[in-house]
Amino acid sequence: MNSQKHAKDTTLVFGVRAIIETLLAGKTIDKVFIQRTINSALHKELVKLIKKHEIPYSSVPQEKLNKITRKNHQGAIAFLSPIAFSSLSHVIQANYEKGKVPLIVILDRITDVRNFGAIVRTAVCANADALVIPTKGSTSLGGDAMKTSAGALSHIPICREANLKKAIQYLKASGLQIMACHEKATDLLYETDLTIPLAIMLGSEDQGISPAYLKMVDKRIKIPIWGPIDSLNVSVAAATVLYESVRQRKF
Amino acid sequence: MNSQKHAKDTTLVFGVRAIIETLLAGKTIDKVFIQRTINSALHKELVKLIKKHEIPYSSVPQEKLNKITRKNHQGAIAFLSPIAFSSLSHVIQANYEKGKVPLIVILDRITDVRNFGAIVRTAVCANADALVIPTKGSTSLGGDAMKTSAGALSHIPICREANLKKAIQYLKASGLQIMACHEKATDLLYETDLTIPLAIMLGSEDQGISPAYLKMVDKRIKIPIWGPIDSLNVSVAAATVLYESVRQRKF
Repeated sequence: MNSQKHAKDTTLVFGVRAIIETLLAGKTIDKVFIQRTINSALHKELVKLIKKHEIPYSSVPQEKLNKITRKNHQGAIAFLSPIAFSSLSHVIQANYEKGKVPLIVILDRITDVRNFGAIVRTAVCANADALVIPTKGSTSLGGDAMKTSAGALSHIPICREANLKKAIQYLKASGLQIMACHEKATDLLYETDLTIPLAIMLGSEDQGISPAYLKMVDKRIKIPIWGPIDSLNVSVAAATVLYESVRQRKF
Repeated sequence: MNSQKHAKDTTLVFGVRAIIETLLAGKTIDKVFIQRTINSALHKELVKLIKKHEIPYSSVPQEKLNKITRKNHQGAIAFLSPIAFSSLSHVIQANYEKGKVPLIVILDRITDVRNFGAIVRTAVCANADALVIPTKGSTSLGGDAMKTSAGALSHIPICREANLKKAIQYLKASGLQIMACHEKATDLLYETDLTIPLAIMLGSEDQGISPAYLKMVDKRIKIPIWGPIDSLNVSVAAATVLYESVRQRKF
């Protein structure tokens, strides 16, 4: 539904002109590596363009590029993504048009590709409508993400947002409640109404949800936990909340 | 509670006599590699002893042992486990004594250490009482399992059973219902009573639960799934069932 192709391996494009053409042709670029020491007019054009399209990029030493390909990369390598990104407004609009109560998953800095893949797979199986991820700080969306999601990455819209605050504001303005899964919350998952238009937010295992986003949420929900371990794995937490919504929504 | 030590790395013991002493001293051995071509009286004694104690072992070529250690291994290397195994009868007895309705997790051939670790962590957090695993075909219970469980492996009894059929029969005779998580089941998870004395069985991602065990279970339960992906990740399935039991048991 949402994929351009199902390649298991990440596809590379190298050479400045080739990357510009790929970008203008509408292909989805996961990230770009640009050689630190090069500063030609064409390179500047490329950087301007990838900034405009909000594509993640890094300035790297030449050696890093040489390790990726032995071909003449001209100081720039792009990694294509096997998926096409969706616009959040299209997702919400399509949801309301088909009369489905929205269920969105927002992931703040999930960098482990196995956790990311497991969450995408669970989101598809639990009938969620989209995943929202930030442009910076998320896992790569290449072949590994496709593989760890068991192919599910092709079956759910992924909205990559340069500004997650704006995305949250947009969702709130569209009538969704934003609920953060948080260990120090007081509202118990099982006493929370998940049948309403809803976005569930989960944060990185190390740092949880960024305080700036946590301030914006409508509710913080807690999954009850026993014993000395103080948190669940993030993909397990996602599954527990998503499947409680499945139960409440009468599947 | 249940650990002898918390070493992050697997500890090796090499030399036939040393392994025998370790075994007789009551240390938990995860598995033993024995050199294929050696057949001394002492080796025979070791094999007899590891069979008696139901410890997994493999006959391997000398090169394999040489790769593991450069020291004089005398044709035998044992891997110690950071955990101590528990007896199923002690677990059930302790459960009934403290007046807790038992919640056991049976894992049939989970070989992926990350899945295993995630399930152990979830089991601890969801207040389960023990995990039952077969001696053959399970993941190694070394440092990786400890790490992927976030240390939870030290906080729940692990029952390693040479004969899983007998273990299932024992649990049934002790008043537990055995429920298998199965894609082709007709009983929906959310319409199943999980407040009774219960053992939840999950199978390997590739092959599911062995038909021989599936025949023995009291009920097959199904987690509702949407879309083209036909199953959840096994650690996600475990979390979904365990946390539905948390909800039903009023946490």
